[in-house]
Amino acid sequence: MMRTRPLKVALLGCGVVGSEVARIMTTHAGDLAARIGAPVELAGVAVRRPSKVREGVPRELVTTDAKALVSRGDVDVVVEVIGGIEPARTLITTAFEHGASVVSANKALLAEDGATLYAAAGKHGRDLYFEAAVAGAIPLIRPLRESLAGDKVNRVLGIVNGTTNFILDKMDTSGAGYSEALDEATALGYAEADPTADVEAFDAAAKAAILAGIAFHTRVRLDDVYREGMTEVTAADFASAKQMGCTIKLLAICERAADGRSVTARVHPAMIPLSHPLASVREAYNAVFVEAEAAGRLMFYGPGAGGAPTASAVLGDLVAVCRNKLAEATGPGESVYTRLPVSPMGEVVTRYHISLDVADKPGVLAQVATVFAEHGVSIDTVRQTGKDGEASLVVVTHRAPDAALSGTVEALRTMDTVRGVASIMRVEGE
Amino acid sequence: MMRTRPLKVALLGCGVVGSEVARIMTTHAGDLAARIGAPVELAGVAVRRPSKVREGVPRELVTTDAKALVSRGDVDVVVEVIGGIEPARTLITTAFEHGASVVSANKALLAEDGATLYAAAGKHGRDLYFEAAVAGAIPLIRPLRESLAGDKVNRVLGIVNGTTNFILDKMDTSGAGYSEALDEATALGYAEADPTADVEAFDAAAKAAILAGIAFHTRVRLDDVYREGMTEVTAADFASAKQMGCTIKLLAICERAADGRSVTARVHPAMIPLSHPLASVREAYNAVFVEAEAAGRLMFYGPGAGGAPTASAVLGDLVAVCRNKLAEATGPGESVYTRLPVSPMGEVVTRYHISLDVADKPGVLAQVATVFAEHGVSIDTVRQTGKDGEASLVVVTHRAPDAALSGTVEALRTMDTVRGVASIMRVEGE
Repeated sequence: MMRTRPLKVALLGCGVVGSEVARIMTTHAGDLAARIGAPVELAGVAVRRPSKVREGVPRELVTTDAKALVSRGDVDVVVEVIGGIEPARTLITTAFEHGASVVSANKALLAEDGATLYAAAGKHGRDLYFEAAVAGAIPLIRPLRESLAGDKVNRVLGIVNGTTNFILDKMDTSGAGYSEALDEATALGYAEADPTADVEAFDAAAKAAILAGIAFHTRVRLDDVYREGMTEVTAADFASAKQMGCTIKLLAICERAADGRSVTARVHPAMIPLSHPLASVREAYNAVFVEAEAAGRLMFYGPGAGGAPTASAVLGDLVAVCRNKLAEATGPGESVYTRLPVSPMGEVVTRYHISLDVADKPGVLAQVATVFAEHGVSIDTVRQTGKDGEASLVVVTHRAPDAALSGTVEALRTMDTVRGVASIMRVEGE
Repeated sequence: MMRTRPLKVALLGCGVVGSEVARIMTTHAGDLAARIGAPVELAGVAVRRPSKVREGVPRELVTTDAKALVSRGDVDVVVEVIGGIEPARTLITTAFEHGASVVSANKALLAEDGATLYAAAGKHGRDLYFEAAVAGAIPLIRPLRESLAGDKVNRVLGIVNGTTNFILDKMDTSGAGYSEALDEATALGYAEADPTADVEAFDAAAKAAILAGIAFHTRVRLDDVYREGMTEVTAADFASAKQMGCTIKLLAICERAADGRSVTARVHPAMIPLSHPLASVREAYNAVFVEAEAAGRLMFYGPGAGGAPTASAVLGDLVAVCRNKLAEATGPGESVYTRLPVSPMGEVVTRYHISLDVADKPGVLAQVATVFAEHGVSIDTVRQTGKDGEASLVVVTHRAPDAALSGTVEALRTMDTVRGVASIMRVEGE
């Protein structure tokens, strides 16, 4: 039952991902047609620099006028891989207005203003798919939106940024400092010239917002996500982590509160036990744990970025959207019926690992312990080492609200006997 | 836009999985309705023993007449969790004839005669979903059918039977023999009273058939899958595996041939390196690697069986099928357009680990090496140990067709200087 009139696809952006999408659409045209039930063809490719030679993309399809391309009216699906907020948002909403469905890899836009995109898709009865926006080729959006649609997700915990995982992995295995590891990541192409979006965790925070919104059926925006980058992580932190049988990962953590009345989303470096499956996620790989009431603990692992893996996710969505188009149906839209509020970081329950430089004299431990107790924070372990009149205390707490933990640290900083707080890191993954 | 007339669900079977499905349908009715866009209600539950008390299932819904239930005509979705070939097949095809879509967890039936089910679904324009048939709660069917629909899958490699993984894990960690580990698995409820389907790998073979068919878009039946159980695996095999830096897992392996013109599917115990992520899959967990051209290597991990995890997969399908019903659309049907043939085991390219008891005299190694060479099998490593006039040779080969490897073993058996073939095991996962 193959339809012969092709479905028309407009491609916005022809960089690392876009050129792979175009290449696979050409080289695997027969497979795509068989799986969709109709051939798909490139109707146009919008780029900024039309002079650049793009292998496999016919010159006559290239345009700089993206607005005109998405407004043609004969385009069935717009694939948006340009990224950023504008002009992507306007192009996507314009595409919907002109009858196209949209496949996007744009995590920043979805996290910033997904609601506008969903609303436009819904108004015009079109699809908005974005598997490629989170964790590259790893199926994660579809499992959360569809496979777990009959379950109750309580937690999503994962490594969703390959650049920072590469850097932290290098620091862990080679003992390198942050700058040295970043240089290596840059040299190998894992980090961009300006690594801010990755190392300051804006990228991971956008992904956390998307995952939390889908997992908990509520609206979570980038601003709702607590964000701490990993530029302050030191070789000394890794040494401390090793002594605890841990390593350090930049984690995105989305949780339903114990009472079920709110959710939290956060991204920060954290120590996790070496026995945790996320501890062995190496190099630029991504992995995400999903804990659901009936399903239990699931893990999804794979390459989280790169042209071909991201194109795989885009093309999977393209096939789905094209099938929907032929069936005159749409896939799942925005699901925010729970309207659960996002609580601030202070209400997150977690554990701290704190290294203190203290005066090497009797009674210091008792004073420090008193400060923890006054803030309602229970201590799990304390390790005390001293040499040359200096001493250090390493305290690992039990679980407590983040506000109580950070209040404790503030109070410790004011103590005469505490010369400095050498490092603070959350402990996760138990 | 909530529809108020409920969608009606008929449940066939109310055992470990069915009762969880019924329970979650009741306790999470509001969530399911919000996600589907209409409430769902149980229209009937077909069981064999109606007298058994089933918590949460109203007595008046229970019937022993499954045929009448699926023929009612007002049922939107039939959930089949009774298993086995008949009466399940007739009930499912009857359900399609009467306008229902079907969600099934029946791996045996899908592997034996999936084509009949797909044909009936297609003829009546209804959905056939079966995420729960393979690897319990782990999303695997949907990622393969949908997320990777734009990619080319070359290999699926996984642990898809929890019972045998539990037994092998016990043998590995405790040094126990097969019988002892089986007894423990039985006592803990991981193995059934008659463990044949698990330990002889019929269950894993059915799953391999389903995965291979979907991954390669061709028809693969249970009979096409090479199958070797794990009852012959010994403590000595584990000791050999350890010496190689390996462990032993029962693996399901589906591969596209190097020339792309055929596929293979097989289930057998194999040594895999401890560094391979599948090596650290413990107890009754399942994990599946998928290697695709663009996506690279993906891994899916989670609980592979049990009432609640399997119910999670069933309910995810139920939500999808109900959404399709409301949209008057259907999801993906059977995709067998590649019509790739399934090659016999002899053509699979793999490696062997062979332990031989040999006469402890000069020249034996040369004779043995000659036999390998005559069969075109290249040797990777040989380890020779001798004591008290007895000697053993452990040979690990390079990759060669299975027929050449088994031919080599047959020839070795006829040699005077070879007193016995102590063990043969394939080596995978590199």
